[in-house]
Amino acid sequence: MEHGFFTIISRSEFEALLRGFAPLSPETVDLAKAAGRVLAEGLVAPHDWPLLDRSCMDGFAVSARDVFGSGESNPGYLECVAALPIDKLPDTVLSPGECARIATGGVLPEGADAVVMVEHTQAMQDETVGGTIEIRKSVAPGENVMQRGEDARKDAEALPPGTVLRPQEIGLAAALGFEKLSLRKRPRVGILSTGDELIEVGQTPKPGQVRDVNTHTVAALVEQAGGAPVPYGIVKDDLDSLSRALERAIAENDAVLLSGGSSIGVRDLTVQAIEAMDEAEILAHGVAISPGKPTILGRVGHKPVIGLPGQVTSALVVMHVLILPLIRHLMGDGNAFSPARRCLRKAELARNVASKPGREDYVRIRLEERDGQPPLAHPVLGKSGLLRTIVQAHGLAVIPADSEGLYASELIDIWIV
Amino acid sequence: MEHGFFTIISRSEFEALLRGFAPLSPETVDLAKAAGRVLAEGLVAPHDWPLLDRSCMDGFAVSARDVFGSGESNPGYLECVAALPIDKLPDTVLSPGECARIATGGVLPEGADAVVMVEHTQAMQDETVGGTIEIRKSVAPGENVMQRGEDARKDAEALPPGTVLRPQEIGLAAALGFEKLSLRKRPRVGILSTGDELIEVGQTPKPGQVRDVNTHTVAALVEQAGGAPVPYGIVKDDLDSLSRALERAIAENDAVLLSGGSSIGVRDLTVQAIEAMDEAEILAHGVAISPGKPTILGRVGHKPVIGLPGQVTSALVVMHVLILPLIRHLMGDGNAFSPARRCLRKAELARNVASKPGREDYVRIRLEERDGQPPLAHPVLGKSGLLRTIVQAHGLAVIPADSEGLYASELIDIWIV
Repeated sequence: MEHGFFTIISRSEFEALLRGFAPLSPETVDLAKAAGRVLAEGLVAPHDWPLLDRSCMDGFAVSARDVFGSGESNPGYLECVAALPIDKLPDTVLSPGECARIATGGVLPEGADAVVMVEHTQAMQDETVGGTIEIRKSVAPGENVMQRGEDARKDAEALPPGTVLRPQEIGLAAALGFEKLSLRKRPRVGILSTGDELIEVGQTPKPGQVRDVNTHTVAALVEQAGGAPVPYGIVKDDLDSLSRALERAIAENDAVLLSGGSSIGVRDLTVQAIEAMDEAEILAHGVAISPGKPTILGRVGHKPVIGLPGQVTSALVVMHVLILPLIRHLMGDGNAFSPARRCLRKAELARNVASKPGREDYVRIRLEERDGQPPLAHPVLGKSGLLRTIVQAHGLAVIPADSEGLYASELIDIWIV
Repeated sequence: MEHGFFTIISRSEFEALLRGFAPLSPETVDLAKAAGRVLAEGLVAPHDWPLLDRSCMDGFAVSARDVFGSGESNPGYLECVAALPIDKLPDTVLSPGECARIATGGVLPEGADAVVMVEHTQAMQDETVGGTIEIRKSVAPGENVMQRGEDARKDAEALPPGTVLRPQEIGLAAALGFEKLSLRKRPRVGILSTGDELIEVGQTPKPGQVRDVNTHTVAALVEQAGGAPVPYGIVKDDLDSLSRALERAIAENDAVLLSGGSSIGVRDLTVQAIEAMDEAEILAHGVAISPGKPTILGRVGHKPVIGLPGQVTSALVVMHVLILPLIRHLMGDGNAFSPARRCLRKAELARNVASKPGREDYVRIRLEERDGQPPLAHPVLGKSGLLRTIVQAHGLAVIPADSEGLYASELIDIWIV
């Protein structure tokens, strides 16, 4: 019984292995279901957008030349010849000295190249159309005008492949008329829980039994990353049961997570079950992060199979650090592993935290909000099998592998999880 | 035509009005669908959790008294009397000088109060059970043991009402046996787009026409906040059509968003349509943020009705600043309006940004990543009717109402949106 049951690799080596799995194939998805997903193909504009020069303001369409030098103390005067329709190409043509009432979004008439905001004008008569408008501000050509093709040019790529579709990209796709989009598939992720001590959530535990916490926690995390969790429930701790369940889960999903066994025997069983599959290979047998060291990475065909640590706290950290990025990578996000994807808050560390060099430490942190100062970050210590520590925590502090720890009153990044 | 078509209130006054709407009523939801939702009632533990003292490690269950003073240079020796089962209450009782093999998660036997990790032991014979174990490290009572009730105490509130259920809270609910939870309803949010110039995404625009961008953008934002968007499509710009559509949307939803009309006429129509409803009241007619000033807040019965600015950029800012928090507030999140809910990144401002005091400015920011330094924050300027500026931006910089702007090279918070 020696220390070091397996050789471990660094977090970045583990990430490099995960990046080796190819993103999923494309599928066609309705625009209304596309938010958060990733473009498999670039979006090529079928026409210029805007189609024509349009006003960004309520005001008067003018020729900039006609209002040159106008100001509060030196207003210009133009004759208003029309109130332009919002939904049609205007048939008005402005001659020098003329302007036309225009609403936000309205198409500029021929002869106009700018818009004066209504706030900078004054109608001299009761009726606007047919009357004289006082112009109190000069405008440059193009001012207050959205120009044809400013959002997208016909036949040019408006959004490149690999774009993660936020609400604003959904808006651009709508503007360009895409009712359907070619997106990378959403990963289906099979979840197996192993452990003879496990029972379903609906059952009452006898002494020694525990409910299957990990399936539910891991499924919620898979969903958070944009994947579709497919829980297979509890599998008995024997090679035959585990191999059969694993084979089915691999066939039916794009990736498989095995969870529940933290003891050495269960870890060995997980490795054996993966190795028993066709075209299987164990790629990593431990990763230098804490908690989370006993994580197994296998490949069956072209699909990743991960043995998560059995302790729920460790599994949560491994999910956030490695598996949520893997899921986003499979769904096509080219920056899936970038730390820029993490949601951070600055906080002041409440006390020293020691760390063992050679591994990355993820310390659970509870934030205490303070008025006018960054929140105070309290490390939440406690055994990794307990849920209390992760329920009390607001996020994680990351201590790099080359550091011996962090000092009280340091301003650090807290990764909100 | 004077400046100031309506009286405007501050962002915090607008927020206070939004907080006045009551969170939605509870409903019963399956645990598998509960992530991201909010507890309507506290979760009271039906029993202690853990049920009994359990090991957090693979190793040997001992009485701490028996290994007091043990160390590398001065090991202790105990007789191993059993290998404990993982899934049952052990019938082993340890006498002084005895230990028992225990796996992670195993229940401690009578006579044991701590666990020595297997890494700190050495079996002196081939067979562990029946042999002598060398103990190379002392342990304190309770060490490496999850204690009965450490996660939750019988009949105590394990999670208070108002808790937002992250994956870890889902795990705790699973551990305590909750297959169903009492959660606040997910807000159904009706979305109406007004504008005679609007056409459906699937249609080809004639000059002057634009596709209905806002419905799709706003729906994606509602979903992002956890609400259920219910789009009603395009409504004609007349009081009768708008009133009928609004009446139906209010009846069928928990909140209604009207979008599309940025021109003064459409804003007036929105106000008239809201006022035409039974038990209706206009609560705010403008908010001191930029972009986003022409936002209308109404109340019909106990339901909020919001007139969004028609420009998509302005609508996006108003959604993030005010309406996503409103949706989270309606679904029970007591901290919905806290800036702590925002996902921030520190960045260095690339150039000066001026701001008009008296209103909060939300400046669109594109981040340029740099090695070993915070990213550089470039303001993305451009007309608020364009999608390009929000597609190019990674987030928003907030300039407070009492500030005249931000200076180049300042380290500022970028709100990722």
